[in-house]
Amino acid sequence: MNKIITIGREFGSGGRELGRRLAEKLNIAYYDREIVEILIQRTELAESYVLQIEESRPLPLLGITTARTFGIPNNYQPENRLSVYKQESEIIREMAEKSDCVIVGRCADYILRDLNPLRLFIYADMDSKMIRCQEKGDDVTALTAKKLQQKITSIDKQRARYYQFYTDQIWGDKINYDLCINTTKRKFEDMIPAIEQFII
Amino acid sequence: MNKIITIGREFGSGGRELGRRLAEKLNIAYYDREIVEILIQRTELAESYVLQIEESRPLPLLGITTARTFGIPNNYQPENRLSVYKQESEIIREMAEKSDCVIVGRCADYILRDLNPLRLFIYADMDSKMIRCQEKGDDVTALTAKKLQQKITSIDKQRARYYQFYTDQIWGDKINYDLCINTTKRKFEDMIPAIEQFII
Repeated sequence: MNKIITIGREFGSGGRELGRRLAEKLNIAYYDREIVEILIQRTELAESYVLQIEESRPLPLLGITTARTFGIPNNYQPENRLSVYKQESEIIREMAEKSDCVIVGRCADYILRDLNPLRLFIYADMDSKMIRCQEKGDDVTALTAKKLQQKITSIDKQRARYYQFYTDQIWGDKINYDLCINTTKRKFEDMIPAIEQFII
Repeated sequence: MNKIITIGREFGSGGRELGRRLAEKLNIAYYDREIVEILIQRTELAESYVLQIEESRPLPLLGITTARTFGIPNNYQPENRLSVYKQESEIIREMAEKSDCVIVGRCADYILRDLNPLRLFIYADMDSKMIRCQEKGDDVTALTAKKLQQKITSIDKQRARYYQFYTDQIWGDKINYDLCINTTKRKFEDMIPAIEQFII
């Protein structure tokens, strides 16, 4: 059976970076946005549409008539969300069955539970996450500290809702993971060899 | 500064065993019941009395008059509890300043927070904890599965109350630890080298 490492992570905790470095060190495949890329290659869907569905809150399972009656925009319909989730799940399973790999986010720990992946959850305290976001730059440099904190909290709430909706488990609850790593004041280069040992 | 590893653990998760093996592997001191032994050597207190205080629920800080008015037994008085906690804390600090060590339980992660210990939390799913308890034997072999589960839940509730009372933090909440390790279906001999890597 392939070695599969799934990574759940708080925004700003460095989980994605840690996953990428771990895959490099182990010389195995790495999937994050790559899953979206495969999905848009295989379907008619636009990248912006898939990302919007991934990043926003899943609605409760309303019937299509109810959704229309309440004027919910077309791309918010639960059928579309479920379809994207289902197609992403199929890609995740296909990749996991193909070779050893690291998969970030997208409920991979749950989707692949029968393949016994090593399920990591990466987290940190708020100060550390804010510093990491500021150092990384992107679109957060213009934000005040308060706004940045609100953004981090809001993204994690979305992730929690997304995870709970599709898995019926609590996102970040340690019982759903094999190893939870606090990256506060820790360096990636120190953590990678230790995580590697857990995988062997 | 000494290397200090503190271990919080769910009952039956194997946290104590893991701590003992880790100390052996690293060839450093190990403190668990040893803290009680030092305390009773230094004071007039009986071991059974100290264990009772450690293992039962800390009362809210009532005045001595209130405690007497409500007929609360003498050894339940908060002054006695606080005195044992304070003396244990002093011993924990003394040991941590003396040499590298592993310390199990007793809010050591909080007591030694200024010494920057590596704070581990060891947990597992209920089935795994029940199996570990049954294999270990002791006083649980006569219990039905239901009673054993109740015992595990009850001991962890006591630990949670004790920890929250003295630290104002939530026991087992991953943000209070550097590394949370799920021992479900994992072997000690596989985990020790990985934890060792985290310490280096």
